[in-house]
Amino acid sequence: MRNKSVDCLIVTIVMSVVSMLLSCENQSKTIFLNDYITSDIQDDVMPAIRNAIEDCNRLKANKLVLPSGHLQIKPDFAFERYCFVTNNDEGLKRIAFDLSGMEDIEIQGDDTHLDFIGYVVPFLLNYSNNVVIDGVSIDYTTPFHSEAEIVNVQKDFVDLKFDKDEFPYEIRNGLLSFANKPTGSGFYNSLLEFDKQKREPAHDAVDYWADGAVKAVDLGNDCVRMFYDGMKATPDNILVFGCGHRLLPAFIISDCRNVLIKNTNVFHSGGMAFVAQRSMDVELNRCKVTPAPGKNRVLSATADATHFANCGGFVKLTDCLFENQFDDATNIHGIYCKITDVVYPDKLIVKLVHEAQHGFYFFKKGMKIEIVDNQSLAHIEDAVVDEVNIINKVYQEIVLKEPLSAFVEKGFVVAQTSYYPEVTIKGCTIRSNRARGLLLGSRAKIVIDSNYFHVPGSPIYFEGDGSYWFEQSGVRDVEITRNVFDNCGFGSPSWGKATVAVGSGIWKDKENCRYHKNIRVHDNVFRHFDPRIVNIYCVDSFDFYDNILIETADYQYNQMKKEAFITTNCDNINIK
Amino acid sequence: MRNKSVDCLIVTIVMSVVSMLLSCENQSKTIFLNDYITSDIQDDVMPAIRNAIEDCNRLKANKLVLPSGHLQIKPDFAFERYCFVTNNDEGLKRIAFDLSGMEDIEIQGDDTHLDFIGYVVPFLLNYSNNVVIDGVSIDYTTPFHSEAEIVNVQKDFVDLKFDKDEFPYEIRNGLLSFANKPTGSGFYNSLLEFDKQKREPAHDAVDYWADGAVKAVDLGNDCVRMFYDGMKATPDNILVFGCGHRLLPAFIISDCRNVLIKNTNVFHSGGMAFVAQRSMDVELNRCKVTPAPGKNRVLSATADATHFANCGGFVKLTDCLFENQFDDATNIHGIYCKITDVVYPDKLIVKLVHEAQHGFYFFKKGMKIEIVDNQSLAHIEDAVVDEVNIINKVYQEIVLKEPLSAFVEKGFVVAQTSYYPEVTIKGCTIRSNRARGLLLGSRAKIVIDSNYFHVPGSPIYFEGDGSYWFEQSGVRDVEITRNVFDNCGFGSPSWGKATVAVGSGIWKDKENCRYHKNIRVHDNVFRHFDPRIVNIYCVDSFDFYDNILIETADYQYNQMKKEAFITTNCDNINIK
Repeated sequence: MRNKSVDCLIVTIVMSVVSMLLSCENQSKTIFLNDYITSDIQDDVMPAIRNAIEDCNRLKANKLVLPSGHLQIKPDFAFERYCFVTNNDEGLKRIAFDLSGMEDIEIQGDDTHLDFIGYVVPFLLNYSNNVVIDGVSIDYTTPFHSEAEIVNVQKDFVDLKFDKDEFPYEIRNGLLSFANKPTGSGFYNSLLEFDKQKREPAHDAVDYWADGAVKAVDLGNDCVRMFYDGMKATPDNILVFGCGHRLLPAFIISDCRNVLIKNTNVFHSGGMAFVAQRSMDVELNRCKVTPAPGKNRVLSATADATHFANCGGFVKLTDCLFENQFDDATNIHGIYCKITDVVYPDKLIVKLVHEAQHGFYFFKKGMKIEIVDNQSLAHIEDAVVDEVNIINKVYQEIVLKEPLSAFVEKGFVVAQTSYYPEVTIKGCTIRSNRARGLLLGSRAKIVIDSNYFHVPGSPIYFEGDGSYWFEQSGVRDVEITRNVFDNCGFGSPSWGKATVAVGSGIWKDKENCRYHKNIRVHDNVFRHFDPRIVNIYCVDSFDFYDNILIETADYQYNQMKKEAFITTNCDNINIK
Repeated sequence: MRNKSVDCLIVTIVMSVVSMLLSCENQSKTIFLNDYITSDIQDDVMPAIRNAIEDCNRLKANKLVLPSGHLQIKPDFAFERYCFVTNNDEGLKRIAFDLSGMEDIEIQGDDTHLDFIGYVVPFLLNYSNNVVIDGVSIDYTTPFHSEAEIVNVQKDFVDLKFDKDEFPYEIRNGLLSFANKPTGSGFYNSLLEFDKQKREPAHDAVDYWADGAVKAVDLGNDCVRMFYDGMKATPDNILVFGCGHRLLPAFIISDCRNVLIKNTNVFHSGGMAFVAQRSMDVELNRCKVTPAPGKNRVLSATADATHFANCGGFVKLTDCLFENQFDDATNIHGIYCKITDVVYPDKLIVKLVHEAQHGFYFFKKGMKIEIVDNQSLAHIEDAVVDEVNIINKVYQEIVLKEPLSAFVEKGFVVAQTSYYPEVTIKGCTIRSNRARGLLLGSRAKIVIDSNYFHVPGSPIYFEGDGSYWFEQSGVRDVEITRNVFDNCGFGSPSWGKATVAVGSGIWKDKENCRYHKNIRVHDNVFRHFDPRIVNIYCVDSFDFYDNILIETADYQYNQMKKEAFITTNCDNINIK
């Protein structure tokens, strides 16, 4: 028999050892970037990041702690990977935090400012599961777009003044070009005027398109005379030259599960700020897309603030700020492939038509798919994938489990129907960007709750088409409640026809198509100078009740149409 | 005991069965492309090629027989692979005959004309061993360069007339652009005048550089007035706009062993005609690089006819015709990486500097390497690779077997010394191309025998440098015999200073450097209007004997220097 004190001692020793082991294990699982930063690499911490991430992989660490303050990152020693990123530009990219294949990892910043020089993607999550990113800010020393102050506007030309340190330019072969940008990427694709005082797209400003080639002469003193026939602009405002590429989203989330990004700021990106594809359970909490504080830029990200294609599980955007980005705050959708050949009995040749969707491989054995008339968006039939043969980034051969009916035609489109994300957008502020607010295209439940919108186009937009963007939409259950829509629609007429609008590409049989279903808009406040509250078509069941409409005179309404509620080809409309 | 007739019967049966099996096997190993071409795919046989190659792989076929006549090939259903190709442009490429990983295979054409439409690489041999390609011709419906007839030349402008079907153009933003070429690739990088009658670069023509942006106005009637200050040109001659990319070599041979390409014509390519890297035992026999017969083009390939980097075993060019390509007939060399960091005791960080060498991974465990002073090309020390860590397409970390000496500095260059190819160039005709003839940089035996040269630069050129092209040369044993050098050097002075010339980038300690060794030039005929026969430096042992020199008046010699033999910083010179 043993005596009790010995037993106690043994228990105590065993517990200590276990505790030591656990503590050792915990220690070994946290890696501090600071331990990798030596004095000689202060001008480029990429080698330190690289070594730290390699150690995280090797040691299966579950936390990488970043120091506070500014870290400068250059492309030279960055990771490299060819990425197809939906609605951005594919390419062989340099990547700073390449978390490909990592699991159960937290990147813990502490007001950590990642200052990028050149062409680097800050974060790639690629087949990464259970990832948390917290407390980082992303900016680029030289932005990928350009801005100039409008000095003088005449019929044939506009005079501009540049801050040459921030936005270096040159006149090359008689054309305005932006220096410090590699060949093929220095191009600007569109020009948009921003109100300098309000720091938002100018009232009724429209997109002027340019293929990176506007004729100009240098006037000296950092001033340029730009020849653009008939451009409307206002002296003292800012002209933004949109970035001609989308090579460098700040966060690429591809084929991941359970990703939380919080307390994180994207001050600039050469593409979207956050883009997720084929991923489940993605949340952005207290994230900001906003121009870098202390700099005089009016633009933040050069494309959408967030974007989700073929995601599932949930998409949550909570307590975020999305402002001054050069495109929509979010777009949540599936992707349609075009059927280019029907090989009976059971085979389809399908094409990813839009260039920014090339390489978006999503068909899998066992996946449920729908075949849709590309013109009417009418459902033709459902099917199940049995085999997928990728031909190249554009074409795939899909073999189905069952024979096709005779109703399937070339030109029809096909998308997956196996999963859609439940969407929650709550407590967010969305303002002063180019174009629209939320593009909603998930067929699972969508809740848009307690957000503030001040966007120049439609804040709530239901898209989807099988002919141009090839984005699958068709909502089934949308709750829009307790939001403030504050003077939306002050920008280009092409950015949406009302606060709540459908913009789906339905070109035939509209009278029979009910592409969207079950939208409820209630208990919101509409502060509106624009009389157009709702403009929808092809919707079954739309309820609009208990909303407060307050007319303002904050902007002048210059459009022709003034009807508050337009509903065409809809059923079960209930507007109170 | 058995009786004899039974034995005989058994033997007969066994032999019959073996013969049947063998015959079955032989049959199953030959695949006929014609069996895959159905009437509905006549406008694009790529699906047939794809299926045939997939079957070749599946059935381990050793012959793919192509039908005679013209086959049209489009990019849509082509194979796709990211290729780093030395001295050409990297990228995600569409490929028609992707022979990656195939062994013991013959592609047997029968005067088969592969007519490509768009951006397709005709042949990729990639880790392919024992490959024969026989009897194919390669052309593109729309070439990647452009040509125009010079109509009128004034001080400030040149008027050009285009054949718009063959070379479609447009004036875009006041600049001459070439249509039907995707964004970023429609650029032309240089302009060169060709003699219309002689169908060769015009006498004393120089490269005019352009970044794809020459100011121009349309004069109507397919004529263009091009503003290029001070351009020298002659009416009735042809102006060639060099292709601004090298995306589409006709034959890419990468990491292969034992490749024979014969009776094969490259009428056009958007890059080099034949390029081999890290491959052993490559022969081109009776191949032609020449403009398409029956078309009015003066240009064939848009870059070198052939090119070999870090190859071993043998390189044989026998009975070939290389004419009218936009760069040298061949360049056989190794590749130097620049040392960007020396991490004592045994680690180097090295960089592939030249953009066209990015992704040229060649270091391997156990490989012998040399470290060289990049300015003097002096040998510093030898080493052996123990470990290679690829950082990205530009940087690699090399760990060595033994510690480095203190003499190794940042900026020095490093190349492999484990193998070099034995080179035989025999019975070839090389003429009317831009630039030089043969750039010889192998340290194994080189024999240049019984060839005919009529090139506008130096037909025999020894290059190599550690500062610009980063090409390893330094010949050890070169025999140049029984060739005819017919009026070479009629082009730009920058294309070489004599018929046999050194052009290596040796910038210091020339007096001590003997970069090239053992060159023997004998029993050749030099028909020359240009008095400069030999211009060499940093050579140890150069013998020039039993050659016949015949002065001609076929071209006017307009340069200042007239010395026939210049040898500086050389030892053991023997010129008779």
